Amino acid sequence: MHIPKMYRTNDLQVLKKIISENSFALLISSKPKLRATHAMMLWNDDNPENPFVETHISMTNIQAKEISNGDELLCDFLGTHTYISSSWYNHINASTWNYEAVQILGIAELMNNEELYNHLNKLTNKFESQQKCPMTMEKMGEKFVNSAMKGAFGVKIYPTEISIAQKFSQNRNDEDFANIIAQLEKSTSLVDKEMAEKMKLSR
Amino acid sequence: MHIPKMYRTNDLQVLKKIISENSFALLISSKPKLRATHAMMLWNDDNPENPFVETHISMTNIQAKEISNGDELLCDFLGTHTYISSSWYNHINASTWNYEAVQILGIAELMNNEELYNHLNKLTNKFESQQKCPMTMEKMGEKFVNSAMKGAFGVKIYPTEISIAQKFSQNRNDEDFANIIAQLEKSTSLVDKEMAEKMKLSR
Repeated sequence: MHIPKMYRTNDLQVLKKIISENSFALLISSKPKLRATHAMMLWNDDNPENPFVETHISMTNIQAKEISNGDELLCDFLGTHTYISSSWYNHINASTWNYEAVQILGIAELMNNEELYNHLNKLTNKFESQQKCPMTMEKMGEKFVNSAMKGAFGVKIYPTEISIAQKFSQNRNDEDFANIIAQLEKSTSLVDKEMAEKMKLSR
Repeated sequence: MHIPKMYRTNDLQVLKKIISENSFALLISSKPKLRATHAMMLWNDDNPENPFVETHISMTNIQAKEISNGDELLCDFLGTHTYISSSWYNHINASTWNYEAVQILGIAELMNNEELYNHLNKLTNKFESQQKCPMTMEKMGEKFVNSAMKGAFGVKIYPTEISIAQKFSQNRNDEDFANIIAQLEKSTSLVDKEMAEKMKLSR
């Protein structure tokens, strides 16, 4: 991902936060042609020396037939993003978009059954722990889980290139920066307020 | 994009709404390798027989050097999306994600200067019309605009394959469907409430 230096970070804590808060990401493959699927993803750094993205798609998805071990895949996670109007600046300029995003370019390794089970179990626990009566893999029962697993194509993506972008108006002078935050805080959109918070923490 | 039949629509009004409300989309290319950039996009159907996506990226973005006329590109627009817990169903099942999305696979045609100007003008007017003191291309002045245009790589994407997904729990029975809506409406998240509204309109 093209990221001008001032918007780029190598902070893996930022990566982990963006991936964790934006788990519904995009799995992109290009062989034999460009395809992309929105899918739930997790960052796995159980072995911090060799972390990877884990995800699954439906077995009926054509990407499940096309993706093989060793293929190059791209995962895109878009975090908080919002429009920044140049009418808020103290000088003439073009408007833009602020955002945070992570892209992982990496090599595919298909999951075995045990890895797929663990992946689905982690996903289930991550999201169900916030529910009143959390569903668990145990509650689903062995028969259901086995059948569901047959319908799922699990893949791990081992990074060859990690890009972490935080485009937070770093290129603006103090007056413009403060006014962007003031304008975003005035907005009725929660996303705008969220961006304002992130910008404040960034300077 | 893989879309099971029950989640698929060919309604171009749905496409236009998703693209218009989610203009900050993903431009994906694959030659010589997989790359993707978040960019502001518009749907242009001035000629309804030959509509296209229009967008621009920075000239300093490597994709600006790699994308040529005739290349296959993929544009991904993700709309409202949220987690759906199977703990809300009246039977055992896996949890899932509801979402709406548009993908345009198409052929690149680089913009000429006039097309780039019109594209930037439309984008500016679209977003600035909501501002208190809207910035316009005229206010920016010819000198600034000419210099900004030199830094922008404009591209049109003529669709060869259009995919419009609305995954709104169509596969759920009436009781589960009603309960999903009730749970989403109870949520403190505005996105959940938005999904509930869209689900209600869909059945």
